[in-house]
Amino acid sequence: MSQSFDIAVIGATGTVGETLVQILEERDFPVGTLHLLASSESAGSSVMFRNKNVRVREVDAFDFSKVQLVFFAAGPAVTLSFAPRATAAGCALIDLSGALPPEQAPQVVPEANAQALAGLGKPFQVSSPSASAIALAVALAPLRECLDIQRISLTASLAVSAQGRVAVTELARQTTELLNARPLEPSFFDRQIAFNLLAQVGAPDEQGHTQLEKRLVRELRQVLDQPLLKISVTCIQAPVFFGDSFSVTVQSASAVDLKKVNAALEAAAGIELVEAGDYPTPVGDAVGQDVVYVGRVRGGIDDPAELNMWLTTDNVRKGAALNAVQVAELLIKDLL
Amino acid sequence: MSQSFDIAVIGATGTVGETLVQILEERDFPVGTLHLLASSESAGSSVMFRNKNVRVREVDAFDFSKVQLVFFAAGPAVTLSFAPRATAAGCALIDLSGALPPEQAPQVVPEANAQALAGLGKPFQVSSPSASAIALAVALAPLRECLDIQRISLTASLAVSAQGRVAVTELARQTTELLNARPLEPSFFDRQIAFNLLAQVGAPDEQGHTQLEKRLVRELRQVLDQPLLKISVTCIQAPVFFGDSFSVTVQSASAVDLKKVNAALEAAAGIELVEAGDYPTPVGDAVGQDVVYVGRVRGGIDDPAELNMWLTTDNVRKGAALNAVQVAELLIKDLL
Repeated sequence: MSQSFDIAVIGATGTVGETLVQILEERDFPVGTLHLLASSESAGSSVMFRNKNVRVREVDAFDFSKVQLVFFAAGPAVTLSFAPRATAAGCALIDLSGALPPEQAPQVVPEANAQALAGLGKPFQVSSPSASAIALAVALAPLRECLDIQRISLTASLAVSAQGRVAVTELARQTTELLNARPLEPSFFDRQIAFNLLAQVGAPDEQGHTQLEKRLVRELRQVLDQPLLKISVTCIQAPVFFGDSFSVTVQSASAVDLKKVNAALEAAAGIELVEAGDYPTPVGDAVGQDVVYVGRVRGGIDDPAELNMWLTTDNVRKGAALNAVQVAELLIKDLL
Repeated sequence: MSQSFDIAVIGATGTVGETLVQILEERDFPVGTLHLLASSESAGSSVMFRNKNVRVREVDAFDFSKVQLVFFAAGPAVTLSFAPRATAAGCALIDLSGALPPEQAPQVVPEANAQALAGLGKPFQVSSPSASAIALAVALAPLRECLDIQRISLTASLAVSAQGRVAVTELARQTTELLNARPLEPSFFDRQIAFNLLAQVGAPDEQGHTQLEKRLVRELRQVLDQPLLKISVTCIQAPVFFGDSFSVTVQSASAVDLKKVNAALEAAAGIELVEAGDYPTPVGDAVGQDVVYVGRVRGGIDDPAELNMWLTTDNVRKGAALNAVQVAELLIKDLL
C-alpha cells in the first residue's frame, strides 16, 4: 500500500499508548508522520517508533489539522476536552476511554461488529471498548450462530496493569515486603493486594455496581447487538500483573451442541481454542499475544442448555491497543 | 458440662487436623483422652493440646474401642480403610474427606441442615462437606426464606492451602524466584501459580468438570435439600495462601427484596455481613476467623430476580475443621 496517514496518539506515555505505537509498527500500519501527545507533565519524553525516538509533545498546543487520524488513549477527561477539536479539524478519531456516547462513537470490536462502521458519517468517530467487553465480544460473537444466548453470568479477574504502572509497582512492592516479613502499608490500593483478592474495582453506585461493571454490560450489549441481554457481572482485582481472565456461564434457550460450539470457536478470528483437559492462563498464554484464549469449554453439570468457558487475554494488547489499531485498519479503507 | 469424650483425630499432622485439635481446645470441647493418629510416615511427631505435647501414633495399630468419637481428617483412602473398623467398634465418626456416600454419612453444615442429624442411627456417621460447599451453604441457607432459588452460578477462587503445606511453600518459592528475576521451574503445580490464575483444580472428567466442582454441586444440593437445584460452578486456583472466595449469582423465581435479603443475612448464625460500599477479602477478613464474610450484596444491573454476592472464608477453619467440631458439638448431645 503506498498511501499513508498522518496520525496522532494522545496518551502516548501510558501503558496502552506505548503499546499502541508498538502495534502500529508491528502491523506495518501505513503511518506517514506520527505525532505523540500527552499532558504537560509527560511531554518531553520520547518513544521509539521505527528505530527513531519520537518526542512526546503537549496535547494542548497541537494543531489537529496536521493529521487524518487520532487515537485517544488517555482518560475520559482528555477525550472530552480534545475530541471536539479533532473532529472540527476533520480528523477521524478512535477513543479508548469510554467517554463518548454510542450514538456519537459506536463501540466496535472488528471480530464481532465490524458492520457498525458501515453507516458512519465523516469524520469517523469510533469507540474501542473496555478490555473486558472486547475479550467477551470476541469469544461470544461466533457463538451467536449456534446458541440462542439468554443470559451471561461472569466473573472478571482483572490484572493490576489496567490501573497503570503505579499499580504494577505496588503489587511488586507489597509482595516483596510480605516475603521479607516487613509490615505492610498499602498505597494506591486501599488494602493488601499481594496474595489477596479485591472484590471491587472502583467505587460502587447506590445499587452496588461499579462503573467498570456497568460499562462492561453496556458495551457488550451494544457490540453483540443484543440490547436486552441479561448479564450478571462481578469484576475483581487479582494479584496478577498482566492478563485478564473471565469465568463465563452462558444460558441458551435450548440444548447446547458442544461440537458446534467448539467448531465455531475453532473457526473464529482472534481466538485460540485450548484443547479439552488443558486450560490457558494469563501469564503462560495471554501476555504479549494478540488473541483471546478460550478453554474449559464445557456444558452444565446437568443442565443441557448451559455453556461454561474460561477466557484469558492480554488486557493491554487485544484488550486495548490492538483492538483500536484493528478498527483503524478498517477505517483507513474508506478514510480518504 | 462434666461428661467428657475420648476422641481420635486421624490426619492429625495435616493443616486441617492440626487446626481441628486447636479448635477442640478453643471451644472447650469436653475431651477426655485425645488420640492423635496419622500414617506411618507422620507418626512420631507431636501436637500441642491444652499445653501438653500429644504424640502422634500410627492409625494402623489403633484400637478404636478406646474412643467414642473419631474425626477423619486425612484423605478419602484413609477414611475408606478405617471407617469400617471405627463403626464396628461403636464409635461415632465425622468424615472430612468426602469419601462416604450420603446415605451412609449425610453431609451436615449446622447452620443449614442440623436437622439431618435427627434421623441418624448409632453409631453416628456424618460427613463434613468440602470448604466451598460449607461457605455457600452457610450464606445461602438463610436466604431460602426470602428467595425462591432457581439457579446458582459461581466462581470459587481457592487458596493454595487447601492442597496442603507443600502448595503453600511452592507459592512462596515461585514468588521469591520471580521477584529475584530467576528462571522459574514449577513444582507441585504443573505451571506458574505466582501472579497467575489456574482455571482448573484437579483433572477434569470427559465432560470437562473436575471432581471438586462435582463434589461442590452434589454436597450443596444435599445440604440445602434442593436435589434439582441448578448450579454452574468453576473452581480456580488463586495465588492466595489462605482463604477461599466466591463470586455468586443467584436467580430467584421472582423479584428479590434486598432489604429482606440483608436482614436475613444479618440475623443468620455464622455470617458477618459487610456493609454496602465495603467488601471483605480473604487476607484482611477471613483468615483465622470462624464466620463466612458476605459482601457486595446487590441485585442485577437490570434483572430484578437476580442477587449477587461475594463470600470469603477461612478454608481451613469454617471450611473444614470448625464445621466438623460444630457437628461434633451437636452429636455429643445424644452420643451416650
